[in-house]
Formats: sequence, structure tokens, C-alpha cells
Amino acid sequence: MHVTPLCACRLIAALCVAAGATSALGESPSADSLPSWQDTATKQSIVDFVGRVTTAESPDFVPEAERIATFDNDGTLWSEQPLYFQLLFAIDRVKELASAHPEWKQQEPFASLLKGDLKSALAGGEQAAAEIVIATHAGTTTDEFAALVTDWFATATHPTTGRRYTEMVFQPMLELLDYLRANGFKTYVVSGGGIDFMRPWMAAVYGIPPEQVIGSRGKTVFEVRDGVPVLVRQPKLEFIDDKAGKPIAIHQHIGRRPIAAFGNSDGDLQMLQWATTGPSPGFAAYVHHTDGEREWAYDRDSSIGRLDQGLDEAAAHGWTVVDMARDWKVIYPTVDQ
Amino acid sequence: MHVTPLCACRLIAALCVAAGATSALGESPSADSLPSWQDTATKQSIVDFVGRVTTAESPDFVPEAERIATFDNDGTLWSEQPLYFQLLFAIDRVKELASAHPEWKQQEPFASLLKGDLKSALAGGEQAAAEIVIATHAGTTTDEFAALVTDWFATATHPTTGRRYTEMVFQPMLELLDYLRANGFKTYVVSGGGIDFMRPWMAAVYGIPPEQVIGSRGKTVFEVRDGVPVLVRQPKLEFIDDKAGKPIAIHQHIGRRPIAAFGNSDGDLQMLQWATTGPSPGFAAYVHHTDGEREWAYDRDSSIGRLDQGLDEAAAHGWTVVDMARDWKVIYPTVDQ
Repeated sequence: MHVTPLCACRLIAALCVAAGATSALGESPSADSLPSWQDTATKQSIVDFVGRVTTAESPDFVPEAERIATFDNDGTLWSEQPLYFQLLFAIDRVKELASAHPEWKQQEPFASLLKGDLKSALAGGEQAAAEIVIATHAGTTTDEFAALVTDWFATATHPTTGRRYTEMVFQPMLELLDYLRANGFKTYVVSGGGIDFMRPWMAAVYGIPPEQVIGSRGKTVFEVRDGVPVLVRQPKLEFIDDKAGKPIAIHQHIGRRPIAAFGNSDGDLQMLQWATTGPSPGFAAYVHHTDGEREWAYDRDSSIGRLDQGLDEAAAHGWTVVDMARDWKVIYPTVDQ
Repeated sequence: MHVTPLCACRLIAALCVAAGATSALGESPSADSLPSWQDTATKQSIVDFVGRVTTAESPDFVPEAERIATFDNDGTLWSEQPLYFQLLFAIDRVKELASAHPEWKQQEPFASLLKGDLKSALAGGEQAAAEIVIATHAGTTTDEFAALVTDWFATATHPTTGRRYTEMVFQPMLELLDYLRANGFKTYVVSGGGIDFMRPWMAAVYGIPPEQVIGSRGKTVFEVRDGVPVLVRQPKLEFIDDKAGKPIAIHQHIGRRPIAAFGNSDGDLQMLQWATTGPSPGFAAYVHHTDGEREWAYDRDSSIGRLDQGLDEAAAHGWTVVDMARDWKVIYPTVDQ
């Protein structure tokens, strides 16, 4: 896999910051850090905001330590269709674990899954999906689970694109993450996805280390096995990092309010509200999936990543709405075949 | 308040690291970064460990991103006698809130507290203390609570030393925090204390930003009041960051295993076990309160900061035990009167 070489870009941007060369409003050198973004008002709104909060003479200047940016993951940093990728991982786990669970042959949603009937298996909606995730994510130690996740990402491919899942991240958003970090922002993922499903790969793919990944989580217990302490994953969901849970988790993990937040669904609404109503200037943006040709197109009526109230709120508050079809030159990173 | 000037020290140490001048085993330049430590085996054990994990040619070398160090707070970074300082804060809050709670005059432990009878108020042990903390820490927004904490630290003084509470931090541990950071460690607090009680002042006092402070926490809920989102503190304890809770919280917040952990009580035992049994070399140290003259002396029989099983485990595993009376030249920072 070949992604646009970000390291050199990051270094140069950091040198620019060090040399005080950033952040004139408008055509700053940093704007070149977003080459996959069309030159539209969307890109300009991002560059303008970064200019305002990083220019020492600006009334909106924000000290570097306070420059927190939070990103939803599913649908914001990578795709989420036709099913959340974590659910696809869980379904693969059901097949692997089936021989140890003979009872699943008679028990929904597992019975349908094992027959290959995905539609019936998921007829139970979120409840069925939660059952599949909980059953397949428990019973291991945290270290064992991280290894399972790493193995899956190394081999599994997406059902329609044939890409590895880590190749279905959005190239413009990778550039945005780097651009913000080059301007002194600390970037966090704040996702409804499982925290232990995200951490093993996000440092390499997004440049976001484990301690800056926040997500939903199952209960774990501490045990000493043959003198060796382990954390064992339990079949119990402890926290759902969605909707009002996002500001709560942000406060819990970061203890600072973000000044920029990026999402794509109504589940991100409270995070965007939280980021834009603090004492510092705040920026909020929705990624709107408008590109049925290159990715997917969905919003108000979708069961995955529904964006309904959020679109209205964005219009009411003047938040940025990224129109994928219009604003992005490319969707995914270039991949060496 | 005048604390030993750490900024210059931090800068010089960082330059040393940049110049590759650190970490010969034994008498490294970095050892000078611990001037308040006596030249004993205790100090040497710390310097040796840092040398081993930061020397590129060492078989025990640990990459910088993996150099996580976790510190308990009460009794490890500052004093905790005659009562945990957060409990003293809560008791002051009871007095302030009393007029709004006429029922407290007939209700223990508040009735005794308001009569100035601390001994009777706390006769109920941990349960009474928890009731006082819960009753006084709820009902505000998180922003309001942070302001209350900041105000208290600006004015309150310790009942026996007369110092401000932030002047009862341990000078040798401040130096240790800086020394570890200068050697590429990321330093975290992992305390049984309340996370929102610690965050407002730890960046200034310890150099540890809010996102690296982990603690016990009450439940919060997200509300929109007159169009403004707030997080409101509830009278319900949600997580106790003590004993087995410490490795669980470390996994939850950091997602990496520490390679160095510092505590002072049996409540830190699981954290020390967790730090010393990972794939990387691990270092564990207990601060042993042996100095009844300059601070306090207590261990196996104390109700606060009991260190009993921990002392046995430290001996069994060869962990470092800091003998305050023997190993520390000074206890607290120099304060301008």
C-alpha cells in the first residue's frame, strides 16, 4: 500500500510553523497541505479557522496546548458501508468461533449468520448487531484481542471494493489530520466503534497513538493467572461512545473541550455542539456522503450513519458541510496493486 | 511560591537528549537532574533503569512512544495526612453549602462536621468520607466545579504545616517527573483521587496536562440549558481508580502498558504488577513514608495509605523502595514566605 508520503510533508509543515511562516488568512503555505481538497469554500473555511486560532496577533488565537481536534471514525475518517467494518470483523469471528459454540446453530442471530443469511441475521437491527459484537469480542485478554484485530486487518478485504479496510480511509481527511497537527493541534478519534478495535492500527494509518483514541468499550477485569496479571474482556458493554456519550467521554479522557470537531452523522451532533460553544472559537464540520459513484450517497434516511438533525443544525449554525462529490478530488489513498 | 527553576533544567536535559549525551549506565549527566535525591542505591536504581531503556544499543531499549510512566498522587507526589486533601476540600464545601442544606443539621456525617467534630463525622470510615465527597462534588457543571477547585487551592492552607496544598508536593518527585520527561517518557497521574479535583492544577504544578490525569470519577450527564450544552455532575460515583481499577483505567485511558510505575500504598499494587510484567522491561517503586520529623511515618497499620502487602511484594520482586528519611535531601519545594 502506498499512501501519499506524509512524513516529509509533516516535517516541512512543522518547519514552517517553527519559522513562523504559517497562517496568513487565505492563501497560506499550509493550504498546500490539503492537495486532495478542491479549492472550494469548504477548504477555505478550514484554512481560515486554522489561521485565526494560530496567528498570535489574532483575537481568536488559541494556545497550542488548547488546540484539541476530535474526529469521529466510521463515515468520517473511513467508509462505513455496507455495514460498519467492526461488524464485518465480528461476523468473521462468529465463523471462526462456531466450532466452540455448537449452540449457535440453533440460536439467532448466529444460526442465520452461519448459514450465510446476513439479511435474516441482522433483521433484529441494532440489538442483533450488539449481540454479535458482544459474543465475539469477549473471553480473550486485551493483548490477545489486539492480536486478533491486527491479524484481521492484515488479511480481510472489503466485500465490494476488494481493498484492505485500512485502505478505505479518506485521503483528504489524512491530509487534514496532518495539516492540523502541523499547526499545533492534538488530534483525537472519538468514535462509537470499540476502543480496542481501533487502537491497534490507528497510529500507523492516522498518526493517532492509542492514548488519543476514544471509543465504546466493554467491561474488563484484572486477573492474575499463574502469577501473570491480565485484563480479561467480559461479555458486557460498559460505555457507548455515541451522541451525548461523546462529550462525556471527551471530558473523561481529555479533560479539555475541543475547538474543532468532525463527524458525519446525528451521533456526532452533541460533540459538534460541545466544540462550538466553549470559551474559545470553535469549528464544526460534517462529512456529507454525496458520492454514490466513488463512495456511497446517504443521509437522512440511512440506517447507517443517519445525518438528519445534524444537517439542519449545520445550516442553522453555519457549520461546514463537506460535500464529498464536490469537495474531494480523490476519496481513498493510492494503493500499489 | 518559588520552586526550584525547572524550566531551564528541562531545557538543558532535552538538549542533552538531543545531543545523544544521555544514559551511560552509572554516572550519567542526567543523574544531576535529581539534586534532591541522596546518592543512594535508590537513586541509582532509577538512573540505571532509565539508562537501560533509553540507550539505543541496550537490549532493553524501549522506543520513546512506549515510555509510559504512571504515578499515584496521594502519598506519592504529595502528602496525604492527616486526611486526603480532597476530603479536606469536601469538608470546606460542606460548610459553604450548609445554608442551602438545612437537613444536614440532623443528618450524619454532616451534623458532626458542622459542629466541628471531625472525629465523630469520620467515625463511619470510608462510607462517611464517600458521603461527604459525593454530596459536595455534585450539582455543578464541570466548568463550575473546576472553578471551585481552583479557588480553593488559591486560598486554603494545610491544618498543620500552614502551607498551600500545592506546596506540599514532593520536590524529589517533581525532579523525577522532569527527569523522566527529559528522557522521552510520557508521565501520567493514576490516582484514587477525583479526576476533576486533580486536573485544574496539575499542569502548573507537575507539568502533567489534563489529558494525562486519570482518577476516580462521578457520573456526568450532558444537558442543553438555554441552548448552551453543559456537563452536569451527578451524586453518583461511577469509577474508583484504586487497586485492580488502576490497570483497568490505564488500559482505558492510555491503551499502552506503563514501563515504570510509582505508588505508596497497597492500592497501587496492581498498577506496579501491571507495569513490571509486560513485554518490555518494567520498573516499580514504592515511596515509603519513614520521616515522622519532616513529613509523616506510617505503613502497615495506617488507615490512610496503608502499605502492607505492597512492602512484601516489593521485597519479593526486588522493586525499589524509597525511604523518605534516608533517600530525600528535602521533602517540599522551597517557598518564598
